[in-house]
Amino acid sequence: MKHKTVGVLGGMGPDATVDFMSAVIALTQAGKDQDHIHMIVDNNPGVPDRQAAMKGDRLAVSKVLGDMALRLEAAGADFLVMPCNTAHAFLPEVLPKLHVPFIHIVNETVAEIANTQPRARQVGVMATNACIESDVYQSAILASGRRSILPPAERQQELMGLIHRIKRGDKGKAVKRAMRGIAMDLAKQGAEVIVAGCTEIPLVLGKDELDLPFISSTEVLARRTVAKASE
Amino acid sequence: MKHKTVGVLGGMGPDATVDFMSAVIALTQAGKDQDHIHMIVDNNPGVPDRQAAMKGDRLAVSKVLGDMALRLEAAGADFLVMPCNTAHAFLPEVLPKLHVPFIHIVNETVAEIANTQPRARQVGVMATNACIESDVYQSAILASGRRSILPPAERQQELMGLIHRIKRGDKGKAVKRAMRGIAMDLAKQGAEVIVAGCTEIPLVLGKDELDLPFISSTEVLARRTVAKASE
Repeated sequence: MKHKTVGVLGGMGPDATVDFMSAVIALTQAGKDQDHIHMIVDNNPGVPDRQAAMKGDRLAVSKVLGDMALRLEAAGADFLVMPCNTAHAFLPEVLPKLHVPFIHIVNETVAEIANTQPRARQVGVMATNACIESDVYQSAILASGRRSILPPAERQQELMGLIHRIKRGDKGKAVKRAMRGIAMDLAKQGAEVIVAGCTEIPLVLGKDELDLPFISSTEVLARRTVAKASE
Repeated sequence: MKHKTVGVLGGMGPDATVDFMSAVIALTQAGKDQDHIHMIVDNNPGVPDRQAAMKGDRLAVSKVLGDMALRLEAAGADFLVMPCNTAHAFLPEVLPKLHVPFIHIVNETVAEIANTQPRARQVGVMATNACIESDVYQSAILASGRRSILPPAERQQELMGLIHRIKRGDKGKAVKRAMRGIAMDLAKQGAEVIVAGCTEIPLVLGKDELDLPFISSTEVLARRTVAKASE
């Protein structure tokens, strides 16, 4: 069948974009190259630091994201995705510029909780500082009738440090163990489900390593991308 | 430092393109997202089957490749790469259309033999049927003063079958073992170095699994891409 073409606003970080692409490819029913989904990917290191911009020059980020989105549209994208949760905090300035649909990773991930864990009321959120400050996850979780459980300040700083280490290419045992520890502490605080609300996290933590439900925002976005491309 | 932007003619196959991107990312000295190389990637399933086109409608492939290259140029690529060896057989019709440099995976891989295995005179070539028929590897190897060792016809058909299995997503133990067997037979035929002249092969076979030097065309192209982007 002929799929729609997806445009990927990528590079935040580059490894997470590749992880997202791998998930899309693995989730596609394909017997040969020609059966796959057309992905036009801008793995763009030119997006300024989202953590710094959240408190400062928001437009520096949203301008680059908007320009990238329009280039992907011009290249033939029928819809857009962005495998970076934090960057979604800058979407309010970007979405009005678009002419094609945009699949929102945060909203889809929170919808996935309702679909797969309908009884869960307390959601453990693992995300960057800027993502937490932006309230994108907490407000979507609240709107779904649930409550967010966040790491205490010190653990949140540790989580941010781990995310920076992954971005530097460190996916070793120490990082994996520490990341799992943060998830387990959220469970102790009452979380009934854990959300990897940063696409770096699934690079070091998988659902098999936890005793409670674990939802990868990367995997949710990949599944929604395959579904949308097949519409 | 500011890197050049690379345009990637991808999707042949999609997994091999992702493998190439991962190698570029891993080979880049980067402490944060902004240090990485800008890759604009067209993971395009719209390129017709290269095996069939070699004996039939060559222009059906070269037209799609040429259009893709021009779109990548328009999107801002400073140079182009194509992580698929077989598709390079169609380059004679594509190169005259381009306005930016193109890094040739076959020529770079053969140059790598001269650089790293200067005394090797017999080169085992693992590639698709169409790639072998096109003579791109054999002629480059001959020009470097070396001789190509190819699998006998029956083993070549087996290799082609394995490549199709990898493209269908089968990277299991049976495929790995059979692929290694083909490489080892080339060594018995006198090969002093093995070239993975198809970007699907490194998805199941690595240099640690062989007793003789093994050159991955994917890795060579990734290294040349990082060097060119940093010029």
